[in-house]
Amino acid sequence: MPHWRATLAYDGTPYHGWQVQPDQPTVQGTFAEALQHVTGEMVLPQGSGRTDTGVHALGQVASFSLTNEIPTANLHYALNRALPPAIRVLSLEEAPPEFHARHSARRKTYEYRILPRTSRLETICSPFLAPYVWVCPRILSLELLNEAAARVMGTHDFTSFAAVNPDQAERQEPTVPDNVRTIFASEWAPRGEGLVCYRVTGSGFLHHMVRNLVGTFVEMGCERRSPGEIGEILAARDRSAAGPTAPARGLFLDRVEY
Amino acid sequence: MPHWRATLAYDGTPYHGWQVQPDQPTVQGTFAEALQHVTGEMVLPQGSGRTDTGVHALGQVASFSLTNEIPTANLHYALNRALPPAIRVLSLEEAPPEFHARHSARRKTYEYRILPRTSRLETICSPFLAPYVWVCPRILSLELLNEAAARVMGTHDFTSFAAVNPDQAERQEPTVPDNVRTIFASEWAPRGEGLVCYRVTGSGFLHHMVRNLVGTFVEMGCERRSPGEIGEILAARDRSAAGPTAPARGLFLDRVEY
Repeated sequence: MPHWRATLAYDGTPYHGWQVQPDQPTVQGTFAEALQHVTGEMVLPQGSGRTDTGVHALGQVASFSLTNEIPTANLHYALNRALPPAIRVLSLEEAPPEFHARHSARRKTYEYRILPRTSRLETICSPFLAPYVWVCPRILSLELLNEAAARVMGTHDFTSFAAVNPDQAERQEPTVPDNVRTIFASEWAPRGEGLVCYRVTGSGFLHHMVRNLVGTFVEMGCERRSPGEIGEILAARDRSAAGPTAPARGLFLDRVEY
Repeated sequence: MPHWRATLAYDGTPYHGWQVQPDQPTVQGTFAEALQHVTGEMVLPQGSGRTDTGVHALGQVASFSLTNEIPTANLHYALNRALPPAIRVLSLEEAPPEFHARHSARRKTYEYRILPRTSRLETICSPFLAPYVWVCPRILSLELLNEAAARVMGTHDFTSFAAVNPDQAERQEPTVPDNVRTIFASEWAPRGEGLVCYRVTGSGFLHHMVRNLVGTFVEMGCERRSPGEIGEILAARDRSAAGPTAPARGLFLDRVEY
């Protein structure tokens, strides 16, 4: 039974996130429909992780098995014909049967794009950028952003930066959930068109973790809080210690490494 | 009575073109609603010209008069607050009363963006580019494209490149419609991400003229026809002599000069 690994790019704007849901357009559901259209087989491709409503992907990875034998190039071509232009299979390859897009993932990289205010004037965001950035009404110091970003490097308990999930909290109490993750790279850099981008690579990410890191870093970048507080925020293991959640539209799942 | 000149950028994807229509979202209609929301006045802003469904603008110009006196910066800010992110007022200035966005226009520049095939493999278009380019399944020679584009420079009757409008044909027969236009610049150039772009500046453009020029140039760029045929096509004054109409989504109204 052939097993496959697909790398996908998608514009998250029209989708209710990755995970299949009844009566809502999702990336996983749309991909499953394309697979069924092409092969006649009903399979649910497994993603490297969920992306939320409005979050984009430059290199999401999905794995799935098919009963039919189909040449790789034909399946790749047919899937892109069947999928809407907002979802593309960038590459497709046969994978060993034990490959699982989520369980086998070793490192993930996310990118977050902000269009900050640069003067006292209101920032005007191009219509062509608007669905893909956070138009942030603050003047940001790249130096302060990076001072804050450097302080999450290494292995920490990221409970303060994780979405509080009522279901999970109930289920997992009183056992402590494993919210320890390792961050290998965490850096802000300027980009063309006035953007500043945050790139973060880690062993894994908790729900809303990148958006909560960004929301907190931005409070430090505009001098509302000090980058020195990152240590206390991590130690608090309390979501209310960190800053707000940055909007979904600026977030891209960039790549997954295995 | 203050008179205004606004420069607009818009993503044409969600709109049924510039011109206001009953029961359809249009750029002109949406802009008029924003003006009414901000000022309480019902005015119909005049554009430099219509753009069709799905055509974008980087610098459309519109003119309108208001009864109320409003400081420029306040009106500019309030309009962008009232407009959806797909339409932005890039700049706003008071204009002399005789200024009319269409009648006063002297030159217009359009840009057309193509993602051509570059090898025997199918081109995969990024989801983030798809609404803004023509994914053209041909391998194109930049040299041949430019040989063809150079041949429309100067003053010609562009009837062969104008949409055949049944209403207009009926009304204007037997008088000859004025389809003479002057082209000041006409050039193809490579762009990042594998794109090739056509930029054309002229005294004015007939309906579908840029898209019909691009459709014809592409037939020459892929060696289906010879660039030398441009002269005959112009001389024919017959739409059927030229090539097909390129898709709307690759076209941008870049700027209008006065």
